[in-house]
Amino acid sequence: MRPTAGHPVVTAKSNGSTAASGGPRVLFYGHYDVQPVDPLNLWNTPPFEPKIDTLPDGRKIIHGRGACDDKGQFMTFVEACRAFKAVTGKLPLDITMMIEGEEECGSKNLFDFVRTNANEFKRDLALVCDTGMWDTKTPLVTTSLRGLLYEEVKITCADRDLHSGLFGGAAANPIHILSRIIASLHDANGRIQVPGFYDGVKDLPADIEADLKSLNLTADQFLGQVNLKVPSGEKGRMLIEQVSTRPTCDANGIIGGYTGEGSKTVIAAHASAKISFRLVGTQDPEKIRESFRAFVRAQLPADATADFIDHACSPALAVSYDNPALAKARAALTEEWGKKAVAIGSGGSIPIVGDFKNILGMDTLLVGFALDDDRVHSPNEKYDLTSFHKGTRSWARILAALAG
Amino acid sequence: MRPTAGHPVVTAKSNGSTAASGGPRVLFYGHYDVQPVDPLNLWNTPPFEPKIDTLPDGRKIIHGRGACDDKGQFMTFVEACRAFKAVTGKLPLDITMMIEGEEECGSKNLFDFVRTNANEFKRDLALVCDTGMWDTKTPLVTTSLRGLLYEEVKITCADRDLHSGLFGGAAANPIHILSRIIASLHDANGRIQVPGFYDGVKDLPADIEADLKSLNLTADQFLGQVNLKVPSGEKGRMLIEQVSTRPTCDANGIIGGYTGEGSKTVIAAHASAKISFRLVGTQDPEKIRESFRAFVRAQLPADATADFIDHACSPALAVSYDNPALAKARAALTEEWGKKAVAIGSGGSIPIVGDFKNILGMDTLLVGFALDDDRVHSPNEKYDLTSFHKGTRSWARILAALAG
Repeated sequence: MRPTAGHPVVTAKSNGSTAASGGPRVLFYGHYDVQPVDPLNLWNTPPFEPKIDTLPDGRKIIHGRGACDDKGQFMTFVEACRAFKAVTGKLPLDITMMIEGEEECGSKNLFDFVRTNANEFKRDLALVCDTGMWDTKTPLVTTSLRGLLYEEVKITCADRDLHSGLFGGAAANPIHILSRIIASLHDANGRIQVPGFYDGVKDLPADIEADLKSLNLTADQFLGQVNLKVPSGEKGRMLIEQVSTRPTCDANGIIGGYTGEGSKTVIAAHASAKISFRLVGTQDPEKIRESFRAFVRAQLPADATADFIDHACSPALAVSYDNPALAKARAALTEEWGKKAVAIGSGGSIPIVGDFKNILGMDTLLVGFALDDDRVHSPNEKYDLTSFHKGTRSWARILAALAG
Repeated sequence: MRPTAGHPVVTAKSNGSTAASGGPRVLFYGHYDVQPVDPLNLWNTPPFEPKIDTLPDGRKIIHGRGACDDKGQFMTFVEACRAFKAVTGKLPLDITMMIEGEEECGSKNLFDFVRTNANEFKRDLALVCDTGMWDTKTPLVTTSLRGLLYEEVKITCADRDLHSGLFGGAAANPIHILSRIIASLHDANGRIQVPGFYDGVKDLPADIEADLKSLNLTADQFLGQVNLKVPSGEKGRMLIEQVSTRPTCDANGIIGGYTGEGSKTVIAAHASAKISFRLVGTQDPEKIRESFRAFVRAQLPADATADFIDHACSPALAVSYDNPALAKARAALTEEWGKKAVAIGSGGSIPIVGDFKNILGMDTLLVGFALDDDRVHSPNEKYDLTSFHKGTRSWARILAALAG
């Protein structure tokens, strides 16, 4: 257990006597922290008491916060290592593991940790198990991750909460001001209005666009599972582009004034929102943060001020298509699942992966076994036992392929 | 103590042996319920442990939730009655008191109570002590109250909270939808955009407008006390109109998504807002409620639904200028305070006063001693001992004047 300014990092290393030499030296990365569990009342079982269950369609699953993201996932790798040692007496490669505790809040202290210990963790290739399958039968190598800019903005007007009967009609209302700002983030076509936001965003090359089109992802298939029907993103883009290769902006939370039961006739002193941007290509998160803050400040009327908190700021990342590990992993996955492994970009973000490239000079191979119905970040998170079992077998095959 | 479907009503009555005959029979109305105390951490003393204190300018005050609104206020009337009995042996008029427990949440059960017991509470005149002074030296009779329509709207999109990395760019975000709706409630001139909203709103007669103008209420004087500078209401209206004789719309609370410390990359399933309207003239709250709900529904994109809760729905009310009680009260107040009593409309609402007029056929005389710095509905509510003492003396004089 290695201390940081925040939650510690758990590390583990093979050495000459436990691992075969030859093949790339790999760094496996995962995270043991999880998303908050609220709203707790929506969980069917206590989130930290894991429970095996059977779905109506017969799939066996494990329930619990982190069952998938990322404890269940990183354990597929750990189990593959254990199996290798049990059968062959040693690991097939030189393996270092790094399991951190702050991924869900932006990996703030891991950046320093990796920089300070660069020599120790610089290997030939990074492996991560924190991504998903294409569907329950089709394995997937994730070739790019969206970056993440996550800002909190707090609007303040009066120096106290006011009686809306006495002050209503005269006092600036921070909920209205914040609402107008959020409403202004997108135009009617779903384009994000922060100046310079699309700098560094490129349209897809024709061949990749054709690949994505051939997957034929329908709204019914992707949104139907959460009771939605109509893609609400940028007009004129395929759904699969909207969720994987296009940048986005979402308000993740908002609060202001009286939010309890019943009514209170108050004009709030403050209103706050958490607003995040998923970034792609070479979008510069620092520049976009400055532009976003200026965009907000430019909309403040008299008597309103804005304060900001920076929760995350990391660029997008793409794996080199010519890294031979990519082809080896696709082949190993195809063999295990009996169906050709897909290789596409993901809409999610894993903050530290950018530094693996930029600081440690390594590509990252992203292979995971999450399914769209895993309720990641939501109540009643689960992980299929098939993902766990065949995921473990997949990593064993990938490690063998990399060693070969 | 009289039961209702909610909090009980406390009533009291004089009778032939305790009150003089002649003069109008009066119904005094007040309320013992108070606004929620949150945020509790902003209180300097526990809200339900009243404490006498001295302000830097030497004024003595009593701290506590309800110190002003309305416990301190209605006690000025009770103390005036007690003083009358102590000095003269009886009350100067036939007096009935009705102190309810649901004013701050719309007096829902009081309406039924008053209708059911109309004969018992129908008197010649209602008296209420739940309004303010013009300033610390100038007494005030409130001649009109704004009505109140208070709606809660909940927007629902997906059937669960979603991971914003996986669904961002495709899933409808209820915080955005709600923000756009709130942003659309006012135009750039501060006019409320709900269709038909201004039906029944009249411009002031020239003489009343001149009266209000002569009070010369400045932004510095009214808004400066809460650290604001610029009236944010309807353009082209005097500040005193904005807060007393014009209708308003304010979002009183908003909540959606993740609102705890730090960050969570979620697209919420729901977002809710509490939105209230202050009404004037003959605006019809039922019609405006229907129009507001249609206005919201018309802005819902695909995959979004809206649910509504009705928290309050009462029309505005004006006292007849030719009621002789009005002139008697102004004269009594002028005598007590040594300064001519002002008579103007108030921006606040007292739900039951409309029914006193419409169901019981009584005018209501609104006299109160609250000050602008009483922090009514806010942390650290207080009431000046001068308001309490001279308020008590004022009611003694008003009762005597009404009896005369």
